[in-house]
Amino acid sequence: MNKNYEALENRFNRMDALGGAISMLHWDMSAMMPKGGTASRTDQLAVLKTLHHSMITDAEVPELLDGAEQDEHLDAWQQANLKEMRRQWVHAAAVDAELVEAMSRACSQCESVWRQAREDADFKAVLPNLEEVLNLTRQVAKSKSEKLGVSPYDALLDQYEPEGREAEIDVVFKDLKAFLPDFLENVLSAQAKGPEILPVKGVFPRSKQKELGEKFMKALGFDFDHGRLDESLHPFCGGTHDDVRLTTRYDEQEFTSALMGVLHETGHAMYEQGLPSKWRGQPVGSARGMSIHESQSLLIEMQACRSPEFLQFAAPMIRNAYSARGPEWEEENLARLYTKVEKGFIRVDADEVTYPAHVILRFDLERAAISGDLKMADLPVAWNEGLEKLLGITPPSDREGCLQDIHWYDGAWGYFPTYTLGAMTAAQLFSCANKDKPEILPSIAKGDFNPLMDWLRNHVHSKGSSLSSKELITEATGEPLNPEYFKNHLRNRYLKNDS
Amino acid sequence: MNKNYEALENRFNRMDALGGAISMLHWDMSAMMPKGGTASRTDQLAVLKTLHHSMITDAEVPELLDGAEQDEHLDAWQQANLKEMRRQWVHAAAVDAELVEAMSRACSQCESVWRQAREDADFKAVLPNLEEVLNLTRQVAKSKSEKLGVSPYDALLDQYEPEGREAEIDVVFKDLKAFLPDFLENVLSAQAKGPEILPVKGVFPRSKQKELGEKFMKALGFDFDHGRLDESLHPFCGGTHDDVRLTTRYDEQEFTSALMGVLHETGHAMYEQGLPSKWRGQPVGSARGMSIHESQSLLIEMQACRSPEFLQFAAPMIRNAYSARGPEWEEENLARLYTKVEKGFIRVDADEVTYPAHVILRFDLERAAISGDLKMADLPVAWNEGLEKLLGITPPSDREGCLQDIHWYDGAWGYFPTYTLGAMTAAQLFSCANKDKPEILPSIAKGDFNPLMDWLRNHVHSKGSSLSSKELITEATGEPLNPEYFKNHLRNRYLKNDS
Repeated sequence: MNKNYEALENRFNRMDALGGAISMLHWDMSAMMPKGGTASRTDQLAVLKTLHHSMITDAEVPELLDGAEQDEHLDAWQQANLKEMRRQWVHAAAVDAELVEAMSRACSQCESVWRQAREDADFKAVLPNLEEVLNLTRQVAKSKSEKLGVSPYDALLDQYEPEGREAEIDVVFKDLKAFLPDFLENVLSAQAKGPEILPVKGVFPRSKQKELGEKFMKALGFDFDHGRLDESLHPFCGGTHDDVRLTTRYDEQEFTSALMGVLHETGHAMYEQGLPSKWRGQPVGSARGMSIHESQSLLIEMQACRSPEFLQFAAPMIRNAYSARGPEWEEENLARLYTKVEKGFIRVDADEVTYPAHVILRFDLERAAISGDLKMADLPVAWNEGLEKLLGITPPSDREGCLQDIHWYDGAWGYFPTYTLGAMTAAQLFSCANKDKPEILPSIAKGDFNPLMDWLRNHVHSKGSSLSSKELITEATGEPLNPEYFKNHLRNRYLKNDS
Repeated sequence: MNKNYEALENRFNRMDALGGAISMLHWDMSAMMPKGGTASRTDQLAVLKTLHHSMITDAEVPELLDGAEQDEHLDAWQQANLKEMRRQWVHAAAVDAELVEAMSRACSQCESVWRQAREDADFKAVLPNLEEVLNLTRQVAKSKSEKLGVSPYDALLDQYEPEGREAEIDVVFKDLKAFLPDFLENVLSAQAKGPEILPVKGVFPRSKQKELGEKFMKALGFDFDHGRLDESLHPFCGGTHDDVRLTTRYDEQEFTSALMGVLHETGHAMYEQGLPSKWRGQPVGSARGMSIHESQSLLIEMQACRSPEFLQFAAPMIRNAYSARGPEWEEENLARLYTKVEKGFIRVDADEVTYPAHVILRFDLERAAISGDLKMADLPVAWNEGLEKLLGITPPSDREGCLQDIHWYDGAWGYFPTYTLGAMTAAQLFSCANKDKPEILPSIAKGDFNPLMDWLRNHVHSKGSSLSSKELITEATGEPLNPEYFKNHLRNRYLKNDS
């Protein structure tokens, strides 16, 4: 084998192990760590991230990359791996070690202040930290922008969505912007005329919610020898391919939000657990990017697990878990409940129809922040005005407004559009999967997710990063991302009785 | 400030952060990680330990040490810090990076195989892994022995007990060996003649046990903003000074073992939380060594929390926790139960009188293993013969024999003697503390640990590593380690009615 390539594989294996350690410490910080651990955790993460950065920016790396790229005998996966290595190197080499360390420290501190500020609905308490995070993020954006030859915002976006570009996103988002407002009003009036949606009330102990969540995770195929479920303020899927750490948050008055959260994160987890084991530790063996990742969580949560078929399977399990009975617990009512459309303040609780508005709001605001047009002191007002314009509602406090999401406080700028790209990709993949394998939905009705998972394993998970997002979608569905699938899905689910 | 010294402080701060990350990943591996995470955790720890090793063995370190050591303006703590830096450097520089990585991998793998082997009482299943760990440990011992100018066993011991030497331990252990066999028989016959010890029976749910354990941790002064209590197969105290992670294991048929385990680990934790905050991240700010560490856990568990005074406070709380009543739950009976002497197989469950025999067994076996006289294939037989000779009993299986402790499987050779050194140190410190502050025991009877903790903070915790173990004991008690304190403690507690 090519010696340069081999040396790179060794180096990236070690970087992956270091990255795995970082990921575990992040999980611990969110799910386990007592608050007094913040200072030492901040130091730990800063040192590990600096070491990670110095491993990839080592002077020998560009030489190894140049040498390996000249070898014509590498196979297709090795070439794809090399392309990903180059990509990671360009991103890393664009920023110096001091900036990496400063960024790591600022994000850890800001995240920790944000936790309290969110609880207290006190944006001012976290403003100086957020300003510092944004200031450093803009420095990163500027440096990467020069190296990548794209705009500062695209340079940030590219970290989460390789080859993703603001201009292309604008096109599909404009399509949605034109479609959604009228569609939303039609859905709301259809639901107002439709059968009454009965609320499910009760007390749902956290231990029972967890037990039920784990039952569904098992049904989906989650491997508990390689992962676990815990709690955190902001639910996420972390850890490594071999040790996937999911989190959710429980409300003992209301179980749906945690349950759907678990299903959502399980979609992420199945992707991680299904990545090609032969390429563990290598860039090409990693998830493709955040829009594909989000397509996997939304495909499970929104496409599969809010379907009438899933509720045939799930409703009896839910009733059993809470020893519940009555008309509100029948599957038809639960299906209506799980597809209820409502203008709300909280993105993670939003339905499919209003969700894009939440993303568009953040996409617009973060572009303005990165360009310098929006100062953080003005964020609460800009947020509230933006939401009013998009959905006609205003949050009662910043807790339900600009403090709700961890992302910006944790330094993840340029991330939000991937949620809606993921929703559209999920609709397209699920539509094609059902065409390929008509047994998928009938099997889900019986609690058997194998046909669906087989299709996803073959067409998405096993690909790792060997294809670009565009290539992956085209190979799997026969065409590039097409918003029509998402719009059709919405029409079928929410207006089918009117059509 | 001296530039060399300053550069060293910076470097050791970063090493401490890296060490903290390693410590957290170890905790997670024991308390949280699903078993399928072993392979990736092994990689993570190996990479982090190799990086830690390369940070301390960097070519500039010996130059910085030489330079800083010539500066006469460093204050006493800085000088002590420098001495500890030099000590750590000598240990690290004695082994090369390949050996560090091989050792880390072998230990992670062996520990993981041991977990199953212990459950299955199947020593053969872990034998190849244990042989590999011992083989690498002997290489480490040989290299360090040459650099330190001590025997291979002392070189290992020195890692856990700085300046500890086999020959000195032999002297105090011989003293105990002469004292204990007759004393044990006297205690057993006195207890046989004394009031009957009533067993406390029932079902003790794990959640109640945890709740009670946390109440006692609070009473002792444990700061839950800087630590937490979880479960693991082998109880330990890990994490960092600012985020102390305790573990215990619960048996729902028997609550005493977990409760005493929690009190024991809390003793360790109070030491960690009480280390000088000004010196966080520096070698001189760390715990002195394992015998002092163990003295803190045993002082709490054995000296303070098995005393009649503690049971005045604790007995009502215990009865409340389990809604229990009856003569067996009275404090006099509980006190007898908690000081019951019995020949048993399990070290961690052993009473104070038989405990040294368990340690002497391991001390003898590990010296034979390091010198090459004992092959690991012969360990089960040697173990059983040794225990028969010391206590006259033979374990029913290796689960209760040579598989019971994690230490050797995890690469901790040369560690065991620190337990009994700690027990003796605890007796000496507690005796002097009570002489200095006669209110200590009466306060404990009322649930107030402040007088005891104040004394420990002043005389032990706040010293960090600024004194050697010998100096610390001498400054705190007026004389070096003297086994008479331990023997007197045993006589007073176990034979006072006969005297």
